[in-house]
Amino acid sequence: MLSDIFAPVTPQLEMVHRALAASLRLEGITDPTRPVLTYVLGSRGKQLRAALVLIPTLGEKAADSGDRSRRAIQAGTAVELIHLATLLHDDVLDEAGERRGRPTLSVLWGNKNSILAGDYFFARAFGILAEINCPALLNLFTSAIATTCAGEIEEHQDSYNMEISEENYLQRIGKKTASLFAACARAGGLLAGKGREEQAALERFGYNLGIAFQLTDDLLDIIGDPNQLGKPVGQDLLQGVYTLPVLVALAEPATGKRLRRILARGLDRNNLEEIRSLVANSQGREATRQMALEYKTRALRELQALPPGPVRDNLARMAQFVVERIF
Amino acid sequence: MLSDIFAPVTPQLEMVHRALAASLRLEGITDPTRPVLTYVLGSRGKQLRAALVLIPTLGEKAADSGDRSRRAIQAGTAVELIHLATLLHDDVLDEAGERRGRPTLSVLWGNKNSILAGDYFFARAFGILAEINCPALLNLFTSAIATTCAGEIEEHQDSYNMEISEENYLQRIGKKTASLFAACARAGGLLAGKGREEQAALERFGYNLGIAFQLTDDLLDIIGDPNQLGKPVGQDLLQGVYTLPVLVALAEPATGKRLRRILARGLDRNNLEEIRSLVANSQGREATRQMALEYKTRALRELQALPPGPVRDNLARMAQFVVERIF
Repeated sequence: MLSDIFAPVTPQLEMVHRALAASLRLEGITDPTRPVLTYVLGSRGKQLRAALVLIPTLGEKAADSGDRSRRAIQAGTAVELIHLATLLHDDVLDEAGERRGRPTLSVLWGNKNSILAGDYFFARAFGILAEINCPALLNLFTSAIATTCAGEIEEHQDSYNMEISEENYLQRIGKKTASLFAACARAGGLLAGKGREEQAALERFGYNLGIAFQLTDDLLDIIGDPNQLGKPVGQDLLQGVYTLPVLVALAEPATGKRLRRILARGLDRNNLEEIRSLVANSQGREATRQMALEYKTRALRELQALPPGPVRDNLARMAQFVVERIF
Repeated sequence: MLSDIFAPVTPQLEMVHRALAASLRLEGITDPTRPVLTYVLGSRGKQLRAALVLIPTLGEKAADSGDRSRRAIQAGTAVELIHLATLLHDDVLDEAGERRGRPTLSVLWGNKNSILAGDYFFARAFGILAEINCPALLNLFTSAIATTCAGEIEEHQDSYNMEISEENYLQRIGKKTASLFAACARAGGLLAGKGREEQAALERFGYNLGIAFQLTDDLLDIIGDPNQLGKPVGQDLLQGVYTLPVLVALAEPATGKRLRRILARGLDRNNLEEIRSLVANSQGREATRQMALEYKTRALRELQALPPGPVRDNLARMAQFVVERIF
């Protein structure tokens, strides 16, 4: 259970949640703006990214922990705001109708509000990062976000391309998802006052964790149950984003030929289920699961650079959780 | 001419332009991403906001000017990236087809790329602001952007509302446009090492200049020539954004009644010209022009707090230019 893994940082995650709400209680944010922004914060996500920042500060000496914990909570809040901003912009892009089990903001209030609310969250996130007053931390996140955007642009430019190599796919999800996970874990190490080598190991841990997470997410878009996920499935396919399970299925002689024919003819909501089941029954399913496990193993290997203790144990359990979602 | 006003900072503005291009030469920004981002920078805007940051550093003592000038160029670059990001997101929002005399990115590459390129520019802007390593400056811009977003959300929430008061309208453009102008001018003062009172005067100058600028822009959307402006006109009306000229026209007995009837029935490209000419021939035109002049005067009054010299003279000429666009 995620709540068990996060148990040691539950009070801090609660403070992140409260700080998110507080970021809306600003001068200038009045009706009619506030209800729009408040809606977005109404459902609490997994807060994986905030936890990645918070966990490395566990078990600190009491003397430092007050200030360190406060800054880690600020950084965790900023990263959740950044994540919310990208979700809001994704919801516009993907014409998704549901997120975290509820209608998306763009369905309720239109695309315009989603884009603007996302921009507002970006600005607030950088405002909070600026308050922490640690240039290295700010650099870490600004480059991670630039990389994330570049990855998303690449994904969009590559849409409907059936000839993407596995290597290209892995690079793309590395930029799109893993770079922010890597920045979070490194930020945690930085704020906890860890040495350079531990920080670098945490960054690589976060990167591999992010890849494992995205592989799992991509597989769930094919084999997942929309009621359990709280969001519609098949979204990648509808947007022409061909992920690893699809790319592997395309390379299979019989399945590939059939799949290629349907995709070339054009996919819509009517033949979506046919394609999902075609991919779900191909080697793409197992290949993606194995790849996610491989990246989980790489993530765990990086943790060997950390001393034994609660930080290492909790990060290891987090890596386990991330891939277990597909079992 | 704008080039005359900017003459003293021409080399710096040229460096801003080059720095904008350089912000795309980053690790991870490869084909196919680069052409998308490069297109946006292909047409050079007025760089008003960068000039607002740069002008206060004029006439500095040679000993300090190297470092100060470098930081002002960085801040100017960041603010132009922020402005570009908001334009990119506006182009999606407003379904605009042209900007700076060329087709918008969203027309050529789709909404998705516009949103993502905007996000990328935001991230790069904050990256550059972080490099300047001046927390006060960073705070200035992060709160200005949050305020800008709040203003845009308000504008959208208020769309198609014919009962907006003049006061509400002025508050809204204050948030949407003037807050960033204010931050730019204050940032210039901060980087030039001016005292607190001069910084505050520069901030108020920027705020009033921003209001005068937006009033002029709003009037040009009604009375401007699309060929001269390099962008389509009547966009506010098509989006249901009722600006001062329209609000004043609505309050006029005969014109107001006719206008109200057409707007309530629904506006489209067919009756847009009828409405534009109705508003252009109403008291809304002169009232908006007078209001712009009033805010220009307020801006000039703030400059009295600065010592005589090139900074004051150039800012005064800038204020003149901003409203002269409507004559």
